[in-house]
Amino acid sequence: MSVYIAVDLGETHIRAASYHQNDTTPIRYKKIKTRAKNERIFARILSLIEDVSPEEKHVMAIGIAAPGPINPRTGVVIATPNIPEWQDFPLTEKLSAYFGIPAYLGNDANLAGLGEWRYGAGQSHNHLLYLTISTGVGGGVICDGHLLEGAHGLGGELGHVTVLAGGPRCSCGQHGHLEALASGTAIANYVRGQLDDPTRESSLRSRSDWGAKAIAEAAQEGDPLAVEAYQRAGKYLGIGIASFLHIFNPTIVILGGGVSYSGELLFTPMRESLQKHAFNPSYLEDLVIAPAALGDNAGLLGALALAVMKDTT
Amino acid sequence: MSVYIAVDLGETHIRAASYHQNDTTPIRYKKIKTRAKNERIFARILSLIEDVSPEEKHVMAIGIAAPGPINPRTGVVIATPNIPEWQDFPLTEKLSAYFGIPAYLGNDANLAGLGEWRYGAGQSHNHLLYLTISTGVGGGVICDGHLLEGAHGLGGELGHVTVLAGGPRCSCGQHGHLEALASGTAIANYVRGQLDDPTRESSLRSRSDWGAKAIAEAAQEGDPLAVEAYQRAGKYLGIGIASFLHIFNPTIVILGGGVSYSGELLFTPMRESLQKHAFNPSYLEDLVIAPAALGDNAGLLGALALAVMKDTT
Repeated sequence: MSVYIAVDLGETHIRAASYHQNDTTPIRYKKIKTRAKNERIFARILSLIEDVSPEEKHVMAIGIAAPGPINPRTGVVIATPNIPEWQDFPLTEKLSAYFGIPAYLGNDANLAGLGEWRYGAGQSHNHLLYLTISTGVGGGVICDGHLLEGAHGLGGELGHVTVLAGGPRCSCGQHGHLEALASGTAIANYVRGQLDDPTRESSLRSRSDWGAKAIAEAAQEGDPLAVEAYQRAGKYLGIGIASFLHIFNPTIVILGGGVSYSGELLFTPMRESLQKHAFNPSYLEDLVIAPAALGDNAGLLGALALAVMKDTT
Repeated sequence: MSVYIAVDLGETHIRAASYHQNDTTPIRYKKIKTRAKNERIFARILSLIEDVSPEEKHVMAIGIAAPGPINPRTGVVIATPNIPEWQDFPLTEKLSAYFGIPAYLGNDANLAGLGEWRYGAGQSHNHLLYLTISTGVGGGVICDGHLLEGAHGLGGELGHVTVLAGGPRCSCGQHGHLEALASGTAIANYVRGQLDDPTRESSLRSRSDWGAKAIAEAAQEGDPLAVEAYQRAGKYLGIGIASFLHIFNPTIVILGGGVSYSGELLFTPMRESLQKHAFNPSYLEDLVIAPAALGDNAGLLGALALAVMKDTT
């Protein structure tokens, strides 16, 4: 059975694994830190791929997931977090030259959507919307059985869609994007802004950490400000998803990423908002809303799906 | 050469024409009013199709464009403006049964996008965004050479995407949709709202008509309120298009519909806003922004493109 290698270039860790085609249990798996002193990152990635390559088996292709901006058409990493030395770096060309096999690159959120479609919560759905909600908001869309990438592979940036023109500042510098209203960063920023008002009471004042996870814990304990922050994020997430339903008319919406692990704290207000903001009930008929099934492996399995897809078509 | 028939079910008129494949000059063309007293509309459409059918030539298929909600997968008109008797009307099934040839149905804005791609301003662009701006705002998207329709054909509703949560009321009842901010109706509503303030001066007070076209005329004559109304619509249109670039990463944006005929009055503020709101300059590189080329025939030629596409694949 054909063997493929998948690599997920995360901001803190790089994961790699080898797989048999259509089997998501890795043959070999290894995880290293993205940053290391005095070592060239490309050389470390070559070693990592060698470490996970099964002996005496021919590898068909390598798939790589990376945070953007990247160009999946040319395999060039335009820039990527935590690897400042990579500016317009021709990653797939260099990997192919070294290993003598094809290599394919994709945006990590797009590929996580592809992974959930092939191996996760979205199997059998050919119209699929995937959102990852963590520090930022990323998207992956399957339209009629095709991964949405756009002309230069810059599509599917669902976090950078304006939901509230003139609203809070986004990590990208624009205002009112879905990411600026519904990400972990947005939740934390909202709480911080509210706590600037000294009359606003919250158990969070006595905590040292005002991050999205700490806010989720405070909300579970009933802190009104923390609950409000998640309700607000859920409301805007529902407004954003309603727009995406009107655009894509999918049969499944899959939510992944760290903030989605807060579960009903976010899902309940999101569902209420979605119900309210879909402009026609037809969009909600037979619509499945599901948590992501692949967890932290979504990017890696998406890279596998990419390699298999490109190699077999 | 194969012959096809196209029908455009408009709110005021129904147009039909016969064409040779790949020739947009009609063999026969006829236009009738959508409403007529004491005559069943379906019987009138059958006559219309017979009238435009060329003698002694076999027609391969019929394509029909209709305003939604419709289901292009099943060919059922769920409801359509000005034809109240059609509720869940199985249009393509009935046409096929009568004429003994296949019939295909599509959303009029989606098909106008398809028409512009096949025969109009978007030829050679496989990643295309089409917006029609008239009473409402409609969309048609080509993703990687495929018309975006969604699972049940309800996709591409780009006018019903929330741009300003909690903003002005849309025709659909929701708030802050692109249609509620950038359509002809939105322009007129804004002017009407401003004129509620008796201190607000405008030459429009002396006009009997406060519609988008009259406002465009007043703006051309330098009326500040009229100019402001178009600038505001252009600003939100630019914000909406920026979001669509982030989602679809197209190589061309085509603007059609009555309000787009106001030209630079709308295009200049739209372009300025788009430039400002694209979150990365890559989205604007090589991007073509073009007026629609097919004018009022976009729906009809889209229906032709649909019939040819379905018949030949």
